[in-house]
Amino acid sequence: MSNDTVSKPGVTVLASKISKIYVEEISSKVNAIKNIRPNGPLLVGFLANDDPAAEMYASWTKKTSEDMGFRYELRRIDEKDFLEEAIIETNRDRQVDGIMVYYPVFGNAQDQYLQQVVAKEKDVEGMNHVYYQNMYHNIRYLDSENTIKSILPCTPLAIVKILEYLKVYNSLLPQGNRLYGKKCVVVNRSEIVGRPLAALLANDGAIVYSVDVDNVQKFTRGEGLKFKKHHVEDLGGFSADLLKQCCSEADVIVTGVPSESYKFPTEFIKEGAVCINFSSNKNFDESVKSKASLYVPMTGKVTISMLLRNMLRLIENSEKSKNP
Amino acid sequence: MSNDTVSKPGVTVLASKISKIYVEEISSKVNAIKNIRPNGPLLVGFLANDDPAAEMYASWTKKTSEDMGFRYELRRIDEKDFLEEAIIETNRDRQVDGIMVYYPVFGNAQDQYLQQVVAKEKDVEGMNHVYYQNMYHNIRYLDSENTIKSILPCTPLAIVKILEYLKVYNSLLPQGNRLYGKKCVVVNRSEIVGRPLAALLANDGAIVYSVDVDNVQKFTRGEGLKFKKHHVEDLGGFSADLLKQCCSEADVIVTGVPSESYKFPTEFIKEGAVCINFSSNKNFDESVKSKASLYVPMTGKVTISMLLRNMLRLIENSEKSKNP
Repeated sequence: MSNDTVSKPGVTVLASKISKIYVEEISSKVNAIKNIRPNGPLLVGFLANDDPAAEMYASWTKKTSEDMGFRYELRRIDEKDFLEEAIIETNRDRQVDGIMVYYPVFGNAQDQYLQQVVAKEKDVEGMNHVYYQNMYHNIRYLDSENTIKSILPCTPLAIVKILEYLKVYNSLLPQGNRLYGKKCVVVNRSEIVGRPLAALLANDGAIVYSVDVDNVQKFTRGEGLKFKKHHVEDLGGFSADLLKQCCSEADVIVTGVPSESYKFPTEFIKEGAVCINFSSNKNFDESVKSKASLYVPMTGKVTISMLLRNMLRLIENSEKSKNP
Repeated sequence: MSNDTVSKPGVTVLASKISKIYVEEISSKVNAIKNIRPNGPLLVGFLANDDPAAEMYASWTKKTSEDMGFRYELRRIDEKDFLEEAIIETNRDRQVDGIMVYYPVFGNAQDQYLQQVVAKEKDVEGMNHVYYQNMYHNIRYLDSENTIKSILPCTPLAIVKILEYLKVYNSLLPQGNRLYGKKCVVVNRSEIVGRPLAALLANDGAIVYSVDVDNVQKFTRGEGLKFKKHHVEDLGGFSADLLKQCCSEADVIVTGVPSESYKFPTEFIKEGAVCINFSSNKNFDESVKSKASLYVPMTGKVTISMLLRNMLRLIENSEKSKNP
């Protein structure tokens, strides 16, 4: 063991490495449906902004999809106002199996409207309201006969898969309780990623501190509730002190702050914590490596694997609906 | 004619007066369905905040509903986190015909999630995504056989009805073009009211300047588009000068700024314009009366009539689904 290993014991784990474990599974499934999709399933991505991060994400999606036997088509929309109609046309196009949109488009609540325009049968990102609502309530199927599986929103799902890879999920514990005893901090409470992620982790047994600019909430599994649903408690308005206190025992810190200037305070990180950033901005600076045991600087490539898995499940659902 | 009438020719029109024209229509419809709802249809309102405006709106809803033969039940939810489950239970309760929620609950994007939790069959406010999407595309029915009617979001609908009452809609023009030649300014571009309202007015032939803190957009009917859908053009970032310019020819100014301190600049109002405020804060100060021909200071009571009409339509839909 070198001195360097002892003084900087932390390891950086790249999303590209984690996503590799899904290559075989996904490719072989694509191969198995060659009878119904001889040219490979078709994913359409809509890009209506000039965000370089979205552009990069689009090129990764293309490469990953094509590597695994999918077809990928990027459709650029110059006038944002035309995107809705383009999505509606694609919803109806039988040649297309999956649709994704590179957000932000309008960068405000109108984006939440757009998410619901994508037909849930082609919504590979799992952003339809029905998928979120099922996720919050641990409902696994879309139909009452339990044959059509619900899917999970792909970024929160990717972070769960990353935590499994990093062995934060302990496979010796029973399924559904594998984060028992773990404390997590999630800095972001968007409806897209932060709030669903906090709920997913709480439902797996963790205590989760969900942090946004306004306040801090504590998510736990709500055993006593009528529905299988996490419990949320307000801990108070946001302050650096409160964040520091939540972090003092946190085994996991997940950040998703969409700001170039934001940096998570390294001094708040507990020695040996696992740190994951899902923002397209680097929310941790280099000093994170002096504190974190495992550090995942970006998550996009795992997210792409998850959306390709979702797409395969949607195709399976669509075949089941045709031949019940 | 007194001097006063000449010097201050403007007339204030109260929503209570406008809503009266719906009393007979609604009451007689409630009476006509006594065979299927002997005790009157049941509307449940959920109140999970301590906003005095919401409290007042709730007491108006109760009074108006009961006056017209509905039953109304206000359910107070102390812990916001329990509201979702209360809604889901009420979705399933066959005794309940309509559900409404007094917003804001969380005051952020989570409210948009909640809106989608209300079953569309009981969503008297017309907030389900399918109602908004149908509205934007001028789709009137929920089914392909054109038997189950879609409803309209109740606040934008109320403002349209107010403009009809005020004769801004010209009934000599063909339906669907009765705002032809009119210019409207809408100060608010929320997904709930401002954006749908701008689209509704544009679809009826108006030129609409939609204003929010970020920018100004021009909505017009988009004849050339594949879908029947309004067209949106960005006019640039918000500035007082741009607002002034849009107002200089505006026949109608509608405001909905959720701020106590905000006051629309009276000097921007064209002599004789129609001014309507749908915010629970007074967005116009008293001087509006020196400029406006017709001034509607609040719209809530018309909104309540619209939601009761929506509820009757939902009951009709539900009966049709049972006995097609």
